[in-house]
Amino acid sequence: MSLIGVDIRPAFVNLFTTEIGLHDGEFAQVQEKFHVKRIPRHGFHLRAGEVCVHTAYVNKGCSRSYTIDPKGKEHVLFFGFEDWWLGDYESFVTQRPGKQFIEAAEDLELLCITHQEFEELGRRFPSIGEWHREKQTKMACAMIDRLIEVKSCSAEERLVALVQHRPDIFQRVALQDIASYLDIAPPSLSRMRRRVLHTKRDP
Amino acid sequence: MSLIGVDIRPAFVNLFTTEIGLHDGEFAQVQEKFHVKRIPRHGFHLRAGEVCVHTAYVNKGCSRSYTIDPKGKEHVLFFGFEDWWLGDYESFVTQRPGKQFIEAAEDLELLCITHQEFEELGRRFPSIGEWHREKQTKMACAMIDRLIEVKSCSAEERLVALVQHRPDIFQRVALQDIASYLDIAPPSLSRMRRRVLHTKRDP
Repeated sequence: MSLIGVDIRPAFVNLFTTEIGLHDGEFAQVQEKFHVKRIPRHGFHLRAGEVCVHTAYVNKGCSRSYTIDPKGKEHVLFFGFEDWWLGDYESFVTQRPGKQFIEAAEDLELLCITHQEFEELGRRFPSIGEWHREKQTKMACAMIDRLIEVKSCSAEERLVALVQHRPDIFQRVALQDIASYLDIAPPSLSRMRRRVLHTKRDP
Repeated sequence: MSLIGVDIRPAFVNLFTTEIGLHDGEFAQVQEKFHVKRIPRHGFHLRAGEVCVHTAYVNKGCSRSYTIDPKGKEHVLFFGFEDWWLGDYESFVTQRPGKQFIEAAEDLELLCITHQEFEELGRRFPSIGEWHREKQTKMACAMIDRLIEVKSCSAEERLVALVQHRPDIFQRVALQDIASYLDIAPPSLSRMRRRVLHTKRDP
């Protein structure tokens, strides 16, 4: 399998050529290890209890990662937009069953590579291994930042930060999922959104 | 500086000899790079805005790591007990000013090593570098688990998990700090603690 015919985002190419520093022939070898996976809206990339076999680059669309508690309530942890690497991290690194559901919030196009092939790439191209280690470090920092944000910022502050980071979030993701991400009730989010964003509609 | 005269915990020795696999002479070289830092209760190992220059092994005592929001409210992120590695992770890896305060919740005895010397050890002894990378991976997983817990478990469930993991927590850490860690008001924690732990006192 390869990515022939897929409209690959420039950021994916730049990552491996400019940032990681592979030349064209090497990048071609890397690309060969990926395959495309298309998931329609509300379809699943992964379910809790499954092993996260692939790491996946979001080439198009948007995902939501969530857990379901024993009472059946969903808790949205992350949204994944274009250029995001998607997966249940713990399940991917341990190759044991994970806790997260990863669902397409919009039609998704993912560029996938298996854990085994990714490890092999890291050995064949040490600069890929190096990039992946740096990415892990950044992810650990991002997780701590997210924890700090969840604990110390009000829902309104977190909404403002989310919209600054993702101005198109309300156009792409259901309000109830944004509410779950922010840990507030959907009606509160509607009111807060109007207040915060000063939404003006034409009559 | 070295650790001569310090009553080093066996777990520290085992980590470097059994787990990482250094022989005695190598471990002696590692030990030489550490120095002891003693901080009395309520003293600081680190303050927000400072660069986390050291990673520190908790040899004795207990710490609390927290942030302070713009309104001046503290938010306890972690407690660090014996055998825990302590620091503001993001500040340590970037060597830029951090966000966390790390305070002694009990008299603390830390075995400290600078970022630079730790990096050098990782180069000199690849197995230390390998261990550190695995530790980073585990930490990233632990951060995701903590985020899932904060989002999806009730305060009571988190209290039960904390006490199962740390039966001595109420003997070692102030109730208000446990309340901040669990994101509940101290009076609620008192009631919850009585209910959950079925505290029985002699008349």
